[in-house]
Order: sequence, then C-alpha cells, then structure tokens
Amino acid sequence: MTVKFGVVGTGAIGREHINRITNSLSGGKIVAVTDVNQDSAKQTVEQYQLDAVVYPNDLALIADENVDVVVVTSWGPAHEATVLAAVEAGKYVFCEKPLATTAEGCLRIVEAEMKQGKKLVQVGFMRRYDSGYVQLKEAIDKGEIGQPLMVRAVHRNPEVGESYVTEMAVVDTLIHEIDALHWLVNDDYKSVQVVFPRKTKYAHDKVQDPQLFTIETNSGIVMNVEVFVNCKYGYDIQCEVIGEDGVVYLPEFPSVVTRKNGKLSSGILQDWKYRFMDAYDVEIQDFIDSVVKKGEPQGPTSWDGYIAAVTADACVKAQKTGEKESISLQEKPAFYSGNAVCETL
Amino acid sequence: MTVKFGVVGTGAIGREHINRITNSLSGGKIVAVTDVNQDSAKQTVEQYQLDAVVYPNDLALIADENVDVVVVTSWGPAHEATVLAAVEAGKYVFCEKPLATTAEGCLRIVEAEMKQGKKLVQVGFMRRYDSGYVQLKEAIDKGEIGQPLMVRAVHRNPEVGESYVTEMAVVDTLIHEIDALHWLVNDDYKSVQVVFPRKTKYAHDKVQDPQLFTIETNSGIVMNVEVFVNCKYGYDIQCEVIGEDGVVYLPEFPSVVTRKNGKLSSGILQDWKYRFMDAYDVEIQDFIDSVVKKGEPQGPTSWDGYIAAVTADACVKAQKTGEKESISLQEKPAFYSGNAVCETL
Amino acid sequence: MTVKFGVVGTGAIGREHINRITNSLSGGKIVAVTDVNQDSAKQTVEQYQLDAVVYPNDLALIADENVDVVVVTSWGPAHEATVLAAVEAGKYVFCEKPLATTAEGCLRIVEAEMKQGKKLVQVGFMRRYDSGYVQLKEAIDKGEIGQPLMVRAVHRNPEVGESYVTEMAVVDTLIHEIDALHWLVNDDYKSVQVVFPRKTKYAHDKVQDPQLFTIETNSGIVMNVEVFVNCKYGYDIQCEVIGEDGVVYLPEFPSVVTRKNGKLSSGILQDWKYRFMDAYDVEIQDFIDSVVKKGEPQGPTSWDGYIAAVTADACVKAQKTGEKESISLQEKPAFYSGNAVCETL
Amino acid sequence: MTVKFGVVGTGAIGREHINRITNSLSGGKIVAVTDVNQDSAKQTVEQYQLDAVVYPNDLALIADENVDVVVVTSWGPAHEATVLAAVEAGKYVFCEKPLATTAEGCLRIVEAEMKQGKKLVQVGFMRRYDSGYVQLKEAIDKGEIGQPLMVRAVHRNPEVGESYVTEMAVVDTLIHEIDALHWLVNDDYKSVQVVFPRKTKYAHDKVQDPQLFTIETNSGIVMNVEVFVNCKYGYDIQCEVIGEDGVVYLPEFPSVVTRKNGKLSSGILQDWKYRFMDAYDVEIQDFIDSVVKKGEPQGPTSWDGYIAAVTADACVKAQKTGEKESISLQEKPAFYSGNAVCETL
Repeated sequence: MTVKFGVVGTGAIGREHINRITNSLSGGKIVAVTDVNQDSAKQTVEQYQLDAVVYPNDLALIADENVDVVVVTSWGPAHEATVLAAVEAGKYVFCEKPLATTAEGCLRIVEAEMKQGKKLVQVGFMRRYDSGYVQLKEAIDKGEIGQPLMVRAVHRNPEVGESYVTEMAVVDTLIHEIDALHWLVNDDYKSVQVVFPRKTKYAHDKVQDPQLFTIETNSGIVMNVEVFVNCKYGYDIQCEVIGEDGVVYLPEFPSVVTRKNGKLSSGILQDWKYRFMDAYDVEIQDFIDSVVKKGEPQGPTSWDGYIAAVTADACVKAQKTGEKESISLQEKPAFYSGNAVCETL
Repeated sequence: MTVKFGVVGTGAIGREHINRITNSLSGGKIVAVTDVNQDSAKQTVEQYQLDAVVYPNDLALIADENVDVVVVTSWGPAHEATVLAAVEAGKYVFCEKPLATTAEGCLRIVEAEMKQGKKLVQVGFMRRYDSGYVQLKEAIDKGEIGQPLMVRAVHRNPEVGESYVTEMAVVDTLIHEIDALHWLVNDDYKSVQVVFPRKTKYAHDKVQDPQLFTIETNSGIVMNVEVFVNCKYGYDIQCEVIGEDGVVYLPEFPSVVTRKNGKLSSGILQDWKYRFMDAYDVEIQDFIDSVVKKGEPQGPTSWDGYIAAVTADACVKAQKTGEKESISLQEKPAFYSGNAVCETL
Repeated sequence: MTVKFGVVGTGAIGREHINRITNSLSGGKIVAVTDVNQDSAKQTVEQYQLDAVVYPNDLALIADENVDVVVVTSWGPAHEATVLAAVEAGKYVFCEKPLATTAEGCLRIVEAEMKQGKKLVQVGFMRRYDSGYVQLKEAIDKGEIGQPLMVRAVHRNPEVGESYVTEMAVVDTLIHEIDALHWLVNDDYKSVQVVFPRKTKYAHDKVQDPQLFTIETNSGIVMNVEVFVNCKYGYDIQCEVIGEDGVVYLPEFPSVVTRKNGKLSSGILQDWKYRFMDAYDVEIQDFIDSVVKKGEPQGPTSWDGYIAAVTADACVKAQKTGEKESISLQEKPAFYSGNAVCETL
Repeated sequence: MTVKFGVVGTGAIGREHINRITNSLSGGKIVAVTDVNQDSAKQTVEQYQLDAVVYPNDLALIADENVDVVVVTSWGPAHEATVLAAVEAGKYVFCEKPLATTAEGCLRIVEAEMKQGKKLVQVGFMRRYDSGYVQLKEAIDKGEIGQPLMVRAVHRNPEVGESYVTEMAVVDTLIHEIDALHWLVNDDYKSVQVVFPRKTKYAHDKVQDPQLFTIETNSGIVMNVEVFVNCKYGYDIQCEVIGEDGVVYLPEFPSVVTRKNGKLSSGILQDWKYRFMDAYDVEIQDFIDSVVKKGEPQGPTSWDGYIAAVTADACVKAQKTGEKESISLQEKPAFYSGNAVCETL
C-alpha cells in the first residue's frame, strides 16, 4: 500500500518533506499540494515532477478522497485550523511544530482526535528519531544511569537574522528541547525560570541572547538549558543526563579528525539541516510504516503538542517576569497513555 | 520512472537489498527473483510481499524485458557468468563483490561492457558511500593534508566461524580496504607483503589471525593494513591517511558517552551490519538515481572490480610466500577514465 | 637561599605539604612544626625524618627566628588567629582555605598585611596552578573566545561521609570554584541563587545532594556550577567558559584508552588527591621561588581569601532562602590591584 | 642525605638536568661540572649560581671524592669512556643515551659494572617514567588486554635541521621506542625491516623521511613504528598495544578544548621538550630516591643500553639493505634479571 500525502504549505520545510517522500523514502507519494501562494504550490509540483493536484486551499485538499495524510507545513498560526479540519475528516496528519499556537488550540485538536477514536496526528518533533537521542532514551530506560536528577542541554546556532526576537528562543528553538527532554526522562514539567546572561555583541537589538532556562519536573529533576543563537562557531546540540548512578550524553556529530598546524580538530556543523537530516528521514519513514502497519502513527502525539504549547507559554512568561513560572498541564487522558516510542528503531 | 530490479541470489545480502529497495529507498521495485534454491526465492517473495516473478535461473530472469537491473547476490563463483549474460543483454548490473573470482573473469566483463558502449555495472563496494570515507576523500582531494605518504587501516571483527580460513582475510575482509584505499588516494597498487604476528589464541586452526599487509602504490604511498578477525572486543574499522601537511582519519562510530563506575566510555559496534547500514542505503539510492538521471551508474566500476581481483590475488600469494609480491594491472582503458565519484554526496 | 618553613597543623594536608617540601620540591626545608595534638607533631617529625623543632603552639613557632614561612594547615576556625599573629610578626604565610571563617576575619588579615607594607600571605587555592586552568586562563586573556558570557562548572565526588552536611557543599567543595572562576574571567561576583534538584538516594540525611548554583558577576556573566558529592562514578572536575567568539573547556584528566568488551573507555579518577597533585607541587614551588626571587608570594592573596569568604557566606544564605542573594564586596584596595598571576607558568 | 652530582657536559640537556636538580627536585645538589668547552662549564656555574667546582675533564671530576653520581651529558661518542671510568671508580652514573655508540662498548660497561657487584648505571630513557607509558605498562602487566600481539607506535616531529640524516631516525629518534617497547611487552627483539614511503617534500636531501620500521620480537609480536620527523603539524608520540583481549593506547597530551570557527579542536605540542618534561622530573627524582634508599638505581640499566645499541645497529643496517635484519643479543646475565621497574610510581 502506498500512503498518499497532501501537503499544505510548500515553503522550505514543506518542499523538503516532499523531496524526502518522493526521492528518498519508500511507501509514500505526494498526490496533492496547496499553499496560500499558489505559484509556490505550482512551482513545487514542477520542481519535483510530481503527479499531484494543486488545490486552492487546505479544505479543498483535505476533501480529496485520494489524500490519506495531510502534511501541515504552513505558517504556524494556520496550523490549528488545518489540523482540526483534517482530523474531523478522519485524515492522518503530520504537523510540523507548533501543533497550534495556543494551549487551548492544542486541546481542541486533542478533543477532536479523541472523538475520532484513534490517533491520527503526529507532531514533527524529529529529535526522538535521532540516533543519539534514541540511545540516550534507551540508556535511561534501561536504568544505566539510575534515576535522572539533572539534565544539561545546549542549543546553539551560529547566527540568526533580524526577525528573530527574544520570544523565538522559546517557540522556535527551545521548543525542540521542550519536547525531547520530558520524553527522555518520562516526566512532566513543573516550573521554569529564565536568566539572561550578558548579551553577546553579535545579537541584534530585539533579541536577548544567550538565555538560560532552568526547568523543574514533577519528580524534581532540574534541567539547565542554554539557548545561544549567535554563538558564531556552529550549530551545536548537546544533551547530558546526570543520574544517581552515572551520566550519559550525546556524542559529537561525527566528523573526520585532522592533525594539522598544531591542532587536533574535527568539524562542527554550520547548518542545522545536516544535524537532523537522518532523523527527518527516519521520522517520516516511521510515520508511513506505522500508518500502514498499525493504522496509527506512533510518534509525538497531539498531547505532546499540547505539552509543548503549555510549556512554551510558561517559558515566554518567565522571559518577561524573571520569576519562576509554573507549568500546569491538564490531566493526561488515558487515550494518550503509554509513552510514544518508535518500536522499529 | 521506477527502476525494476531482478535479484539473482536470495541469501542474506540479497534479501537485505530487496528489503532496502522495497521498504526504505525511493524509485526502485523488485520485479523478479531467482536462486539456485527455488524455495528461498519463493520465501523471499512471500516475506517481503513482493509483486515479483520467481525465475528458475539467472538467464531466464535476465531475459525478462521487465527487468532493468540485475542484482547479483549469488555465490561468488557464480557472479561472472551472470554478470556477463546481463551485460550482453544490455542490462544494468549491481554486483556484490567479487565481480568475478579471477582477474581474467573481471577482464571478460570489462570487455563485454566496453562493447556495449556505456557503463552498465556497479560493484558493491559500499565504503565509498560511507559518510566518514566521503569526508576523508574530500579532505584529500581538497589538498587539506597535502600529498598522502602513508595510510594506516584497521579491519577488526569480534570473531569468525570455523569456515573462515587464512585466504578469506583477503577475499572477504581486506577486499573492502583494497577497493577503498586506491580510490581514496587516486593511485594504483604496486606491491604487497604480508607479516603474520603471533596468532591469537582465539583463532581457529585454519586461520592465521591477525595479519598485517604492507601495500605500496605506484607513487610510493605505503599502506599498513591490519586484518584481525578475532579481536573479541568489537567490529572496528579505522582508516588514517598521513600526508605531507597533516593527517586525517575516520571518526569513531557515534555512540552516546557514559560516565559510570570510574570509566568514561562509549560503545563499539559488535555487528558489522550496523557500521555501513547507512552506506548501503546511500549506495543503492545513488545507483537508482544515477541510472535514472545519467543513464549509467557512477559508483565502483568493472575496472575497480578488476583492480580488486588482481590485488587480492597478489595478497593471497604474499600470504603464502612471505615475500613482497608485485601487483600488475593492465593499462586502464579510457572508457574507465575519471575517478568514480558520487556527485550527489 | 633555603626557605625555612614552620608548619601549624600536622593533619593529612599538613603532612602532604611537609612531604612535598622535603622530598619533591627544591629550595624549602621544614624547621618547625606544631599541632594541638603534640603527638601528631612529634610523629610527623619522625615519619619524615625532619630536622625540625616541635613547638607547643603556633605563637611559639611564629616566634622562632629561624622560621621564614608559616604554613597554616590547622582546623579552619583556628586559621585567622595564626595568620594574624604570623603577619604581625612579619612572617610569610601559606594558609590553606579558609583564610578565616568569616569575612570580617579575612578583612582583619587584609588590614594587618597592608600595615606590613607588602604581601605576605598566599591562600592555598591550587587550581590556579593546574595546567588545564592555566590554559583556560591564557585562552581567555588572549581573547580567543572573546568576552566570556557564561561559565559551566561541575564538581563531582564519588561519595562523602556522614559528617558532610549541606553547607559543606559551599565551604569545602564549591569554595574552589569560587576562587577559580572570578580569577578566570577577571570579574567580581554580584549574586547567587541555589536550586536543589531531586536528591540522590546515595546521599546521607543531612546533606542535600546535588546542588546547582547560579552565580552572576558584575558584568553579567552567568555561571552554573553543579556540586554533586555522591555521584558514585568518580572525581570529576569540569569547567567550560562560553564566550562571544567561542567556547573553551578543560580536557579530561589523561588516562590510557582501552578498547575491550564492546567499549571504548578511559579511566576517571576515584580519588581527588591525584587530580591536583601536580598543581600542589607547582603551587608550593612557585611560592618558594616567589618569596626568594620577588620577596613576596604571587598566588591568591588575602583579598582573594576575603572574596571567597563573602561569596561563601552568600552561597550558604542562598542554600537556606532559595532566593537570589547578593554578594557585596568592599572596594578593592590598591594594595591588591593587579591580577594575581603565576608568571613562571 | 643529599646526593652530590658531577655533570660531564654542560650543553642543553646537561643544563636542563642541572636546573632540574637545583631548582625543582629534592635531595640532590650539583657539586662539580666539566665540559670540553671550559667556558660553557663556567657559565653554567654562574647561570645557576651553583656551589660547584669546575674540573678540566671528566677524569678529574670523577676523582673528586665529593661526587656521588656522574651525570653523562656530553657528546655521544665520549660517553663510553666517561661511564667506564666512573663505574671503575665505584661512582653512580646517570648517562643520557647512548650508553655507548657500539654494542661492544655497552658490553664493556656491563662487564665493568658486574665487576663492581652492584648496579651503578642508569640510562636516560625517560619514557618509562611518563604517566601514559606507566599506565600502558600496568594495563599490559595486569593482563587487561591479554597477550600482546601487535604494537603500533608513531614518533613525529614538526621538522628537523639539515644536519639530521637518515641514520639519525634510528639513533636519535627511534631509539626511544626501541627502549620503551621491549620494556612494555617484556620481550626481546628478533628482527627488523624498514620501508621508505614516498619522501615528504619538506625533508632535506640527506634524510629519508618518513620511515616505517617493522620489528618482530621473540614471541612473535609485530611492531610497526613510524618515524616522521618533518610532519609539520607538531610533536606527536603515539603508542598502541593490540592484545588478544583488547587494545590499549596512550591518551592525547592534555590540552584545553576549543569550539571556534566551525572546529572542535585541541592543541598539539610543537616542542618535544614539553611532552616529557614531567617524565624527566620523575626520572631524576626516582634516581635520587633509589640511590639513597636502595643503594642502586632502578631505572633502565646498562643491559638496556646494550639492547638499544644492538637494536639500533640492526635498524641502521636494515635502512641500508631493505631486508629483514636479525637482532641478536647475548644471553642476559642473571645480574640484570628482573624487569627494571619504578616501584615508587
């Protein structure tokens, strides 16, 4: 069975998923696309030589009986409406973050999905499919480091443009750690506090950079997460979990090692795209395989999207107040019980 | 366009390629299979739910007009005949090593291929598609370490079965270094000498283990290659190129790092399958893409298969004589000029 | 010229310094010892076969004209009186931390020393003499990472005894980071806040473990320092400075690397003594050489002892309140201007 | 007891030992010096403000009753005569390599020493005192890697002057590996073969560079040793021992790690002096302590000097013939039985 995708939003990430499904992965096919910029949609069909219908809008695309899965890669504020419509039409959804821009919006999706009686939605948090994070998760779940007590994470970009403002450190950057870290330690967040260190001279006026987030979980795990988006030297993701019996952390991204000019050195990525390229492939292939074989996706759920939204709200509030802000989630429905895992990994 | 594959040989590696083409990669489809063990061929069709014809033998499979590419994953001694027949029928061939068991056999394929007027054959040397080797090649080609002077390579397996005899250290193990190293340094081999260190107590009677090969190239590069197939500790591939201006080597295979019980440690692979899993995927996807877009494969050629055969013969002779044995290649036909590269990498 | 030492306090650290001066370093000699436990003093003379007078108390030892330097390695609360008496007698002092148990006590020593018109006192903060910290300092001072913005430090011990209580995480453990970090970045501390993560099951009742300190400097550098004294796996000191142009951090303590049983591993120290053994030697040799050649020690000063005391007080208060506590230093006297450095390093 | 040293040869290495004994170590004192260049001897006394007699020649210095130990740091060809005279006078000797320039010369010293009835001579092979080599030795002796089968060693210098000729790769450079490797594996050498890879463009006319030595031991261990003295990038010493149960190798020389400009890097030494600076200190302090406490040195013996001479001769012959040359030692006298170790390490 070939899974037929309709893509809503043919910007950069939308095209990447189209390319991936068309030219790298197995079992999927793009049959429909749409974009608020119709020219973009048409160009995409040409560029990838797709045998796909160009629809005028998301609702028309969703209505196409040929479409099994709606890929939501439009502008963030548009996500909620598209996802809701797709879920109500009983379609599978692969939605890039954010699931919705508000916690309430996420809950509306959660409720719509529960009404359908099965999981339809996967949120595009690809780190859970990264080989390093999968190994971290396995080590923790097997008890290799005992009970986790602390986490230290780092999210550094070489630089960001002028449109990147302080809040985006949460909603665009930290959001990936927000999803990955509670999944890693099987716990929910309780509070967050933000400290702004001295600002780097390389940051634009409207962004505080770097930022340090201290997030506590219900069981008392304390997570220190650094977001530093003008670090100059490269794209660098670090994650270390300190437990009662030991510590485990991500390896460096593999690069050949050179001895030259008095230095032993290896390369650090400059472009974030390469860091999780494999994870994106694994993520979408797993999505296709799960839909085909299990009838539902098994990756990050709508509930994970809701957690991310609530937590991001608290983080943004904490950026403004400088105080410790609480993170309050509704009770998790049994529908979402079980830890989202990737059995095939 | 979907590339249609016929697979000759449905043993372990054959099934892996079938699985890969069917479930992981894009643009290929298995349409025919055969095996000297017809039950194996039939089971394979069932196991992967293929829509494929089971043929009684390779010639029948090759004769199927629906077959674009013949994948040769049968027993080594059978390769030559299948490849020759496929080439003469104008089909593309993806042949696992060896291309043929003799240098003469390889030359017969070379000639047959040249008669067809275009490259049809790719030999399954997957290391050229491994991210680490690709980075090594780029560093060398860009002149980052200057002129290469020495290479140090290590090929270690945790253990081998009783059927593994001394000669297999060349034809099954070293063969991958034989292909990769001349490609890395753009040079041809001139001679080889073998030294047998003290034998490990873990080696069976019929295998000398470890073995040290010293291979010289026409330009004077000296390569020390260790083959140690009962090293116990894991599967470990190392490759270091020492140049006039610096040294470059492969990174460790990435693994999370642990601090526990007084040790800072990371895992070493136990099973060779995982080491080059990505490389196999990239290799076959590149083969499909090249056939579709360029009309010919761009990976290791028949000529590379010939180089491997001549070099392996000299290495086996050197195992027996203990002397420095020369490696004499015929002049390279213009047909194979240019360095096989992977432009898409 | 041989520098003649009188040692006040012949416990573990006192004996180590005696052994070091007697058997490893050059230019020093132990001529007098005392201890509240006179037997301990006598045994020490025997153990190291010293040609040294055993005095009944510190004042008698200080009065010995033969004594050039008073080494203060007694119980912490006794330090201030001994140091004051020695300074007032115009003797050089090498005092293990703390200089005094209160900020006021430190100031009294500062004043007494200024009255003598030259630096007489060095406080035993040995990290400034560790090769790794010296390299960090050089990298920062040369501008290799630009303006420091953040520091991340880790101080982990495998375990501590039942006498180790929460406050000791500051006065016994963090105290070394307190001295080293302001020296590294040439800045003064402004505030500190403490968070207690979930407590490890290996910690005794009276100690909160681990603890996370967030310390801010006047220029806005934010330092996250983890103290974890029952981490089980080893003695582990980490220090990383994140700057505008790059990051620099300590190397792992060197250990041979092993490939065995599926692991690539190197050893982590179990005993803190080995971590800074070289630094202790360099520290005392530098003290001897500075006294001889420059007439005054050039290591951590009384003022550094005062900074440590004020900062430790604030850290202990922060442990109790959970709030951000300010760190207020008096204005630095010109007498202590200049950054304490180790020119010979 | 203070050990009184007379130094024969006040060139660079002689002065370093004088400085070390005078200003860094404990228990030794320079009481006499001599040099064929009397001005050099006099300047040395002034430079280090020694209370030492300047003698016209080695025999006069040896005759001084005040001299306990003769340090031989003169020109290599002069070593034998001085060592013999000192031994015959019953003095201890610390002799930098070579012990003598011929195997016969070494044997004459061995015989003279045996006649004195106790070990008097230590040869200055400092690697045995390097922390990394000591750890390697411990790991091997404890059986952590099982029976050693192969060794891989690398000795690289950034560059050498025009006076450095091919033979010096053995007598000046490889000589340290010659001593260290048989000590590491508790075995004697049997044969050596040399291969010259393509010569680096940075090498002067009179030196073949790099060179690869394959040395076999009596038990069949095969050692590949690379000497590359114009490697440009730094001073780099590597040593890896591959055993039946695992592999162990030296750590990199510790250096702070930097993330900057897209590179993760650490420094490589440029100057060999820093690599073994600690080892030199430990070596001489151990010599002093052994002489005082045990009445004889416990480091590399005259017999080790003889092994080095015989092996170096074979290596130089192998450079010329390109053939496998045998290394034949006389039977080891019981006098030298026991493995020279450093108990205090």
